[in-house]
Amino acid sequence: MTVDRLLPSDEARDLIALTRELADKELLTRVTEHERNETYPEGLFAMLGEAGLLGLPYPEEYGGGGQPYEVYLQVIEELSARWAAVAVATSVHTLACFPVFTFGSSEQKDRWLPDMLAGNIIGGYSLSEPHAGSDAAALTCKAERTEGGYRINGTKSWITHGGIADFYSLFARTGDTISCFLAPGRADGLSFGRPEEKMGLHAVPTTTANWDGALIEDDRLIGAEGDGLRIAFSALDSGRLGIAACAVGLAQAALDHAVAYAKERTTFGRRIIDHQGLGFLLADMAAAVTSARATYLDGARRRDLGLPYSREASAAKLVATDAAMKVTTDAVQVLGGNGYTRDFPVERFMREAKIMQIFEGTNQIQRLVIARSLAR
Amino acid sequence: MTVDRLLPSDEARDLIALTRELADKELLTRVTEHERNETYPEGLFAMLGEAGLLGLPYPEEYGGGGQPYEVYLQVIEELSARWAAVAVATSVHTLACFPVFTFGSSEQKDRWLPDMLAGNIIGGYSLSEPHAGSDAAALTCKAERTEGGYRINGTKSWITHGGIADFYSLFARTGDTISCFLAPGRADGLSFGRPEEKMGLHAVPTTTANWDGALIEDDRLIGAEGDGLRIAFSALDSGRLGIAACAVGLAQAALDHAVAYAKERTTFGRRIIDHQGLGFLLADMAAAVTSARATYLDGARRRDLGLPYSREASAAKLVATDAAMKVTTDAVQVLGGNGYTRDFPVERFMREAKIMQIFEGTNQIQRLVIARSLAR
Amino acid sequence: MTVDRLLPSDEARDLIALTRELADKELLTRVTEHERNETYPEGLFAMLGEAGLLGLPYPEEYGGGGQPYEVYLQVIEELSARWAAVAVATSVHTLACFPVFTFGSSEQKDRWLPDMLAGNIIGGYSLSEPHAGSDAAALTCKAERTEGGYRINGTKSWITHGGIADFYSLFARTGDTISCFLAPGRADGLSFGRPEEKMGLHAVPTTTANWDGALIEDDRLIGAEGDGLRIAFSALDSGRLGIAACAVGLAQAALDHAVAYAKERTTFGRRIIDHQGLGFLLADMAAAVTSARATYLDGARRRDLGLPYSREASAAKLVATDAAMKVTTDAVQVLGGNGYTRDFPVERFMREAKIMQIFEGTNQIQRLVIARSLAR
Amino acid sequence: MTVDRLLPSDEARDLIALTRELADKELLTRVTEHERNETYPEGLFAMLGEAGLLGLPYPEEYGGGGQPYEVYLQVIEELSARWAAVAVATSVHTLACFPVFTFGSSEQKDRWLPDMLAGNIIGGYSLSEPHAGSDAAALTCKAERTEGGYRINGTKSWITHGGIADFYSLFARTGDTISCFLAPGRADGLSFGRPEEKMGLHAVPTTTANWDGALIEDDRLIGAEGDGLRIAFSALDSGRLGIAACAVGLAQAALDHAVAYAKERTTFGRRIIDHQGLGFLLADMAAAVTSARATYLDGARRRDLGLPYSREASAAKLVATDAAMKVTTDAVQVLGGNGYTRDFPVERFMREAKIMQIFEGTNQIQRLVIARSLAR
Repeated sequence: MTVDRLLPSDEARDLIALTRELADKELLTRVTEHERNETYPEGLFAMLGEAGLLGLPYPEEYGGGGQPYEVYLQVIEELSARWAAVAVATSVHTLACFPVFTFGSSEQKDRWLPDMLAGNIIGGYSLSEPHAGSDAAALTCKAERTEGGYRINGTKSWITHGGIADFYSLFARTGDTISCFLAPGRADGLSFGRPEEKMGLHAVPTTTANWDGALIEDDRLIGAEGDGLRIAFSALDSGRLGIAACAVGLAQAALDHAVAYAKERTTFGRRIIDHQGLGFLLADMAAAVTSARATYLDGARRRDLGLPYSREASAAKLVATDAAMKVTTDAVQVLGGNGYTRDFPVERFMREAKIMQIFEGTNQIQRLVIARSLAR
Repeated sequence: MTVDRLLPSDEARDLIALTRELADKELLTRVTEHERNETYPEGLFAMLGEAGLLGLPYPEEYGGGGQPYEVYLQVIEELSARWAAVAVATSVHTLACFPVFTFGSSEQKDRWLPDMLAGNIIGGYSLSEPHAGSDAAALTCKAERTEGGYRINGTKSWITHGGIADFYSLFARTGDTISCFLAPGRADGLSFGRPEEKMGLHAVPTTTANWDGALIEDDRLIGAEGDGLRIAFSALDSGRLGIAACAVGLAQAALDHAVAYAKERTTFGRRIIDHQGLGFLLADMAAAVTSARATYLDGARRRDLGLPYSREASAAKLVATDAAMKVTTDAVQVLGGNGYTRDFPVERFMREAKIMQIFEGTNQIQRLVIARSLAR
Repeated sequence: MTVDRLLPSDEARDLIALTRELADKELLTRVTEHERNETYPEGLFAMLGEAGLLGLPYPEEYGGGGQPYEVYLQVIEELSARWAAVAVATSVHTLACFPVFTFGSSEQKDRWLPDMLAGNIIGGYSLSEPHAGSDAAALTCKAERTEGGYRINGTKSWITHGGIADFYSLFARTGDTISCFLAPGRADGLSFGRPEEKMGLHAVPTTTANWDGALIEDDRLIGAEGDGLRIAFSALDSGRLGIAACAVGLAQAALDHAVAYAKERTTFGRRIIDHQGLGFLLADMAAAVTSARATYLDGARRRDLGLPYSREASAAKLVATDAAMKVTTDAVQVLGGNGYTRDFPVERFMREAKIMQIFEGTNQIQRLVIARSLAR
Repeated sequence: MTVDRLLPSDEARDLIALTRELADKELLTRVTEHERNETYPEGLFAMLGEAGLLGLPYPEEYGGGGQPYEVYLQVIEELSARWAAVAVATSVHTLACFPVFTFGSSEQKDRWLPDMLAGNIIGGYSLSEPHAGSDAAALTCKAERTEGGYRINGTKSWITHGGIADFYSLFARTGDTISCFLAPGRADGLSFGRPEEKMGLHAVPTTTANWDGALIEDDRLIGAEGDGLRIAFSALDSGRLGIAACAVGLAQAALDHAVAYAKERTTFGRRIIDHQGLGFLLADMAAAVTSARATYLDGARRRDLGLPYSREASAAKLVATDAAMKVTTDAVQVLGGNGYTRDFPVERFMREAKIMQIFEGTNQIQRLVIARSLAR
C-alpha cells in the first residue's frame, strides 16, 4: 500500500517519489541479504548522499536539502519501510551534523558541513557510555587540555556506524562539565570494539569506542567548554523525531505485509482478512500507524515553525516506537507460523522494532521528560 | 494548561481565543449545575449561534464561518473541555446541517441554511432505530408518498436534542431504499419519548421519536429518493471527526485536572506528580492526548484538501475515544478517593467518555470500516 | 452463567449454594432500587449475619464459619455479582474483625468476637485520613492517654459504613507511633460527615469521622501501643484479597449480562455474539475473569496454608480490579447505547468497578508493594 | 528467584527439586551454545526420559509418572525457565502420547506406551499442513487403504522434532473424514524438509514431512477411522495447558533476569529497581507471571478432577502466552541496550515467546474456542 502523504510542496512530493524509487531499487533488493549475513552495504551511504538524502533538513547554502522537518522525516520513514538499519543510520548521521550546524562557528560550518551534508563523510553520535546511558551527567570519558587540543581517554558505547563513520559528535568530560567535539573517525589512540551482537539492525554495526589518549584538535571543540549537555539534549529532541519516523516506516511495512498476506491466505473458506477477528486486529494496527505518523508530524511542524517541541518529540518517540513494537509483533501473528520464519520479513521487523523503544532515550526516559514538563 | 495549538491563520487564532473566553464564562460556570440537576441550558445554543459557533465549517455565503475543518474541530475541542454535552450537541447540529448543504437543492440551501448556521434553528440527527444502530440498512421507519409529501410511521431512537431541536435530518425507508428528509421539530403525529436515563451528558436530552403518520412536505426531501444511505454515510465521516474532537477535549480536561491535583497533593513528603510511578502515568495520559489530537487533525486536513479521509476519520474516532476512556479513567485514579466523588469533575468526565466509544458508529463499526478499506 | 467453582469440600459447596439462593432472593431483588435512590438497606446485614456470612473465615469457637479463605472469598464473589456495595461492606466488616481476632487478648476476643462474627454488631475500618491515604505513617489523628483510656482528636476519612457501623477498627497516633483501637460506633465527641457523593456504591454510605475528644477506654486498645502499623498492614493483605473477590464478582456479572445481551440482539442478520469481532471481545473478557479469579484463589490458598502471601495479595488486587474496570467498560460497549442507560445494570457495574482500583491501597500502592518485594 | 510453588504432595515437591537440579545442570549449561549454533542436543531427551520426565502425567502401570497435571505442568515450567525449546518438545512428546493412551486399544497401549513414556522413543505431533493450520477440517494429506495398512500421500508441516522423532501422531484424511495414526519416524516414502529458519527455538528443528506413498500398518490406526478430529481436539486441550506452562516458565526466567539486572545496575545514583518508573514495570511483569501461572493451574486442576476444562485451557493458553510476549519484551526494555544483545538471554526469550502465541492454536483460535463456548 502506498501511503498517501500530506506534503507541503510539489518539491516535497517529487522528493518522496524519488526516495521511493531509489529505496525500492537500492534498498529493498539488498536488505535481506545484508541483514541476514550481517554485512555492511558498502557504497550505499555514498549513493544516498549523491541522491541528496543525507542533508535534507539543513540549508541549501551548506549543500543541504533545505527541507522542512516534516518532509525530511517522511523521507526517513520511506527508507525505514525498506531497510530500518539504513534509515536509522541516516537519522543518526543527520543528528551527528546537528551540533556543528547549530552550535559551531562559521569557520567550522564552512569547513565541515558541505562534506557532511553531501554524504562525503558519514557521521556517528557518541554520547552513551557503558555505565551512562540515559544518565548523561554521569559520563566519565575525559577530554584533557593539552597543547593544540584535547587528549581523550575513556570508553564510549552503543555507537551506530562505530568504526566505519568518518566523524563522531563526541561528548566528553572537561573537568566538571561536559563538552562536545567533532571527533575524527580514525586517530592514533582510537580503536573500536567488535560489533555488538544485536537482535536486529545487523547491516550497520554498533560498537564501543576506546579512546586511549587520542588527540582532538582545538578547532574541533563545538561551542564552548561546558556546552556539551545543552548541545546533546537539544540534538536529542530532533533525533527523537527521527527515530519516531523510523518506527512508523517499520510499522507501515509490517502492516503492508500483514494485509497482503491476509488477502492471499484463506481459512474456513474465506480470505483471512475477511474473518472479523483478524480484520479488527489489522484495523487496530492501521489505526496505530496512522496515529503514530500524525504524532511525529505534529512535532515536526512545531519544530518547523520554531515553536517548542521537546515534549511533543518525546511523545512522538514514545507513541511511535510502542506502536511499532505492537504492530510488528501482531504482524507476525497475522502470518502465523510463516511469520515466525525468515521466509517472510515480518520476524525481522519485530526484532528491529525492539531497539527503537530503547535508543536515543529509552521510553522510560521519554516519560520522564514528559512528566517533568507537566510538573513545571 | 492552555493547549498550544497549531492554527493556519490569525483569524483562527482569534476564533480560538474567543471560544475560550466564551466557554470559560458561559459553559464552565454552568456545567456542574446542569449536569447534576439534569436540566437543559435554555438559551445557551442561541448564544453560541450569536457568537458564530454553530455554522463554522460552512461557507460565509450562507452565514457560515468559512473555517477549515481543522479549525472548526479545535473549537469543538475547546467547548468539550468545558462541557462535553454542549460540544456533542454542537457537533450533532453541524452534522444535521450537512445533508442539506451537501445534497440539497439551491432553493433548499437558500431557504434553510442561513437560519441553521446562525443557530436560529437547532438540528438533530435521526438515523438510529431501536433495532438498527450500526446496521443502517435495517431501518424500518417508513416514509410513504402521499399528496404533497410523505407520511412517516415508525420509531427512531438515540436522538440528541430530541424533542427540543427545531429540525432533524431524518432517514427513513421509501420502499426498498432509504431517503433523507429535513424533518420539522414539531408536527402533528410526531411525539418524543421521555429522555433516556444516561450515565452522563445529562444536560442535553436523548430521546426516541415516534412518528405516527406525521406529514413531511415534498420539498423537504434531500437529494433524490434512495440517496439516504449515501448521504448518511458521507455525513458520518464528518461527524466522526467531530466526536474525535469532543473526545480529545474531554481527555485534555481530565489530564489538566489530574496534573493540577498531582502538583498540589503530597504523599511521603513529595508532590505526587514527583513520584515517578504517577509521573509516568500522567506522561502516558499526555502522550495519548497529544497523539489523539494529531490524529483527528490529520483527518481534518485531508478533508480540507478534498482528499479521501473516511479511513482516517474512523481511525481518529477510534483512537481518540479509546484515549478519552483511558485518560479519564486514569484521571480518577490520580485523584484517588477524591476523584471518585462529585467534589471533582473527573468522575463526570469518565462517565461522559464512555458514550463516545459508542455513538456515531461504535468503535467496533470503526474497525469494520477500516478493515474493509484495507481488504479492498 | 453459573460459575463452576473449584471448592474443597461438600460443606463449601453447600455454603455457595446457600449464598446464591440468598443473594438471588435478598440482594438481586433490591439492589437497583437502593443503588438508584441511594438508600441504606436496613436489616440486610443482620440477615447476612443470621445466615452466617459475616464471620466466615474465623474459627467456630467464636461463632465464625471456620471456612478457609478460598471459600470465604468465593462467597464474597457471589455476593458482589449481585450487589457490590454489600459485598464490599461485608469484606470491610470481616477486615474490621481482623485486629481483635489476630492481635487482641483472650478477654477482648471473648468479649467482642461472638457479636462481631454473628453480625450483631457491624464493623468499619478507619485508617485513612484526608491527607493520609496510602501513606499511613503520616496519620495525624491523635489518641492521648487520659484517665481510663484515650482521648481521640482528629479527622478520619473514607469510612465504609461510616455513621452506621457499631464499631470501627481505628488507627490513631499515640505519640511517635500508631496504635489500633476497637472504637465504638457512637460516643460523645464523635460525629460523622455527610455521606460522600460517590460515583457508585450508593447504598452503603462512606463518610468522614470527626473525633472531638471522645474517650476510648483502655481495654479497647488492640495489641500494644505502637503496634498499629503492623496490625494495619497485616489486615490489609487479607482485605486486598477480599476486594479482589469483589472485583471478580462484579466482572463476572458484567460478563454474564454482556453475553446474554449478545445472544439476544441481532445485527446484519446474526446474533451479535456470532460476529467474530464481538465474540473475540467477549472471549477476552471471559479470559480476564477466569484469570483474575485464579489469581485471588492462589493468594487465598497460600494464606490458608500459612505461607507468605503479601505479594500475591497485592498482585490479585491489582490484576482483579484492573480486569473489573476493563470488563465492565467493555460490557457497556457490548450493549451499546442501551448499555449507557439505567435500563441495564452494566453502567452501574462500570461505575462501581472504578473505586476498586482505588481503595484498600490504590493500584499504584499495590505495584509499590510488589516492586519492594522484588527489590529485596 | 526460586518460585514458591503450591504442590499437592511431598512426592511432587521432590520431583520439582529433582527437575530444578537436573535442569540447572544439564539444560542451563548448554542452552546458549545450542540455541546459538542451532544444533540439536543429542542425548538430552534420553536423559530426560531416564529421569522420568517424559511420561509424567500418565499412569505408572505403563511406566508413566502417575502425576496430576498440575504437577506435570510445573515441571514443564521449570524446564522452560531454562530452555524453552526443550520444554516445548517435551510438551509435544507428551501430547504425541495422548492419542494412543486415550483412544488406543489395550494392545496398542501395551506395545507402545512403555517405550514412549520411558523416553526410549520420542514423539512428534503432525496435524498442521501448509494450507491448513487452525482449520483442521481442511486437511488434504491422504491415507488410502491398501493391503495391510494405509498409503500416505501429502505434506504435513510445522512438525516439532521433525526428522528426529521416532514416532508421530499423524492426522490424515481417510475419505471424507480424518483419522489418527501412530506413524513411524522413518519409512520408505517418508522424507522431511529442511528445518524451518525460525526466529527462535533453534535447538529443536521444525520441519515439513513429505509422505510419498509410505505405508502405515493397520495396527497403527488409533481409534476408528473418522475419529481423527475428535482425538486431535481433545489432545489439543491438554497440549494448550502444556504451552501455557512453557510460556510461564519463559516469562518467569525473563522476570528473574530483569530483576537481577535492575538490582545491579545504577543510574542517577540509585539501583534502577528503586526508580519507581522501572519498579512499577517490574511489578506489572511479576503480577502477570503470577496471574498466568494461577490460570493454567486452575485449568490443570479441573482436568485432574475430571471436570470440563476446554474453555479454561484456551483461556490459559491465551493469557499465559500473551503475558510471556509482554513480559519478555519488557525484560529487554529493563536491560536497555544490553538486553538487545546476545550477551544476555532476554532477547532470546523474547524471540521464543512469539511462537507460543501462534502454535497449538493461534491466540485467535483460542478466542474462537472461548467465544463459541460462551455463545452456546
